[in-house]
Amino acid sequence: MIHPRPAGQHTVRRHNCALVLGAIAESSGLSRAGVAASTGLTKATVSTLVDRLAAASLVRDEGPQRRDGPGRRGTSLSLNPDGPHGLGVEIAVDHVATCLVDLTGQVRWSRVSPAANRAQSPGRVLGRVAKAVAAALAEAARRGVVVGGAGVAVPGLVEASTGLLRRAPNLGWQDVDVPAELRARAGLESVEVLVGNEANLAAYAELQAGGHDGVRDFVHVSGEIGIGAGLVLGGELYDGTRGFGGELGHFPVSSRGPECSCGARGCLERLAAQEAILERAAAPDLPSLLGALESGERKAVAAVRAAARPLGTALSSVLNLLDVPAVVLGGTYARLHPWLAEPLREELTRRVLGAPWSPIDVLCSPLGTEAAVRGAAASAVRTIVADPDTFIAASGRA
Amino acid sequence: MIHPRPAGQHTVRRHNCALVLGAIAESSGLSRAGVAASTGLTKATVSTLVDRLAAASLVRDEGPQRRDGPGRRGTSLSLNPDGPHGLGVEIAVDHVATCLVDLTGQVRWSRVSPAANRAQSPGRVLGRVAKAVAAALAEAARRGVVVGGAGVAVPGLVEASTGLLRRAPNLGWQDVDVPAELRARAGLESVEVLVGNEANLAAYAELQAGGHDGVRDFVHVSGEIGIGAGLVLGGELYDGTRGFGGELGHFPVSSRGPECSCGARGCLERLAAQEAILERAAAPDLPSLLGALESGERKAVAAVRAAARPLGTALSSVLNLLDVPAVVLGGTYARLHPWLAEPLREELTRRVLGAPWSPIDVLCSPLGTEAAVRGAAASAVRTIVADPDTFIAASGRA
Repeated sequence: MIHPRPAGQHTVRRHNCALVLGAIAESSGLSRAGVAASTGLTKATVSTLVDRLAAASLVRDEGPQRRDGPGRRGTSLSLNPDGPHGLGVEIAVDHVATCLVDLTGQVRWSRVSPAANRAQSPGRVLGRVAKAVAAALAEAARRGVVVGGAGVAVPGLVEASTGLLRRAPNLGWQDVDVPAELRARAGLESVEVLVGNEANLAAYAELQAGGHDGVRDFVHVSGEIGIGAGLVLGGELYDGTRGFGGELGHFPVSSRGPECSCGARGCLERLAAQEAILERAAAPDLPSLLGALESGERKAVAAVRAAARPLGTALSSVLNLLDVPAVVLGGTYARLHPWLAEPLREELTRRVLGAPWSPIDVLCSPLGTEAAVRGAAASAVRTIVADPDTFIAASGRA
Repeated sequence: MIHPRPAGQHTVRRHNCALVLGAIAESSGLSRAGVAASTGLTKATVSTLVDRLAAASLVRDEGPQRRDGPGRRGTSLSLNPDGPHGLGVEIAVDHVATCLVDLTGQVRWSRVSPAANRAQSPGRVLGRVAKAVAAALAEAARRGVVVGGAGVAVPGLVEASTGLLRRAPNLGWQDVDVPAELRARAGLESVEVLVGNEANLAAYAELQAGGHDGVRDFVHVSGEIGIGAGLVLGGELYDGTRGFGGELGHFPVSSRGPECSCGARGCLERLAAQEAILERAAAPDLPSLLGALESGERKAVAAVRAAARPLGTALSSVLNLLDVPAVVLGGTYARLHPWLAEPLREELTRRVLGAPWSPIDVLCSPLGTEAAVRGAAASAVRTIVADPDTFIAASGRA
């Protein structure tokens, strides 16, 4: 019989491993001595752990650190961009997207495959997703990198405690265990698979991308088939006690509005999502709408302005409630930003009670429709960086 | 010339003082050795600081700690209920309230004076408030306790960075520096005076009161003249980047509703606050309404049910956005809880997307209309406990 190590020792190493990697992630270029200083661990402990992290390709030693004073030069440590990658997957109503993101957050590869997933059975759609995942894994193998974790973005309510996709109205799904299905179908048995709401993951990607001069409080909103929102409060994604937070699509905008799939009338989603704008502009698809907008066609411009009104009504309530200073337009709304931002800002300025004392920013996401799949991959990377010891143990077993 | 102490020493003592008092506040009954263990400070440092805190009446030594094992018994330390009190003040449209709260959070004295403050000049109202404050200070003097700080609850937008009451629509005020006015008028020169929104302070009081089996995420909502909400997320009051958070009164409920003072139509406040309920029930005042409800008069019951609908519409959007599991009814709504809770819960259950997977609680605040003034006093107490050194220095100077 092999005696297991005392639990305490495991736990301490796990904790310290995460502490060291966290310090390196936070300020790239630290020396071992710098890591010791910022974590409070001894240099000997740091050296042992850095060796362990480097052996697992999590950390890279970039040679002598620049230094102006005298004394021995430390070497410069950073997250290893050729180390394990995070796999991002997005299951949308009209496409499946995949991407590979390295430890530093850079997208190294991505692919989008159109797919008619609306009202298809989970089995059929997850079969498609499994194929896309297999292609991404093959690409990772070709590049000689390990996939250290996967994140899946889905258009529905994901319960944090169980990981179940409780309800995805636009797919017509209920109670699907997406990680379990993908582990079984797509050869993801040995890595952790996380699942999250696409709008929350898009907001997370926006936060990670870190644009907008360090704005740490914002609502990220995008309007493809549904309207998704994600809240970033104090530099953290806020998704509520069960992970159901950020639902804005069924905000009641007009008691006389059209009926919605949720049973209510006049939901924001029915009045301001892509479909409603296209219909009002009499445009067959988004490229046509954008073309019409660029050539200044009045009907197209008016359709975007008409969407700004209900969107502004809903967002002004969010801003009155949460007092955040910025809205970030993502997805389709990012493409519409040149025409949407100003009427939206007017509506917000009119309705937000605190607007007279600080202007509201309506910003444009640089990530566009890729945000959700990037956020999914970034959440997988975060899991590795937050608990490298578990990743190392799992790769040893694999 | 007297050389000032090095800044570092001041800062360290200030920090350690707060650490020690915080440890005692968190678990009453600790010994000096227990405080040392939980703070990581040496026993000698702890003893010096406890002596300092006890000399300022912040900490009380309650004699030998119960202990089953052998060895010297430590003494049991706790916050001193006869130490400095926090003064709470509420400026409402129809009354001025004051109270004294001790360091442990107990209300030791309170008074409510009816006052017709609506559309009165700040000067006139603050004159009334100064009189109420003078009575509270006299009461503190009679009891032999020091007032260590004051908190003022106001029905409007308070900008955190400046402390200015930017706008109080129901009072008709703009840009009033309430703390400065009260310091000058009410003999509060030597204590810190904080000001905050009444709904946020009511939610803070609810959190401090700690009922409801430790629910750490809730929306507190009350509906007197306006409708005020306060958000508690993860056990902390959340009031946004500027302190303007929690505004729910102007939530657009019905595009056909009556005009509101804010310029929009169909605001929640016009449809579900006390005045709207009384009007629909044809009741002259709240006691009459409660009487009618208790004798089961249909018109009164229907009026409350009618308010549940717009209130549920607005709150379901809040719950969809924030995914918090509970609504706490405060103020007038707490009095109406027996008739309001069930129709409200029905409306929320119908509209909140996550409701099928965990029921929504509609709880009743035990604090009633006293919540805001209690929260104001509690915020003053928190300031003392969070930074006792500043309080001690100020009392030395006074």
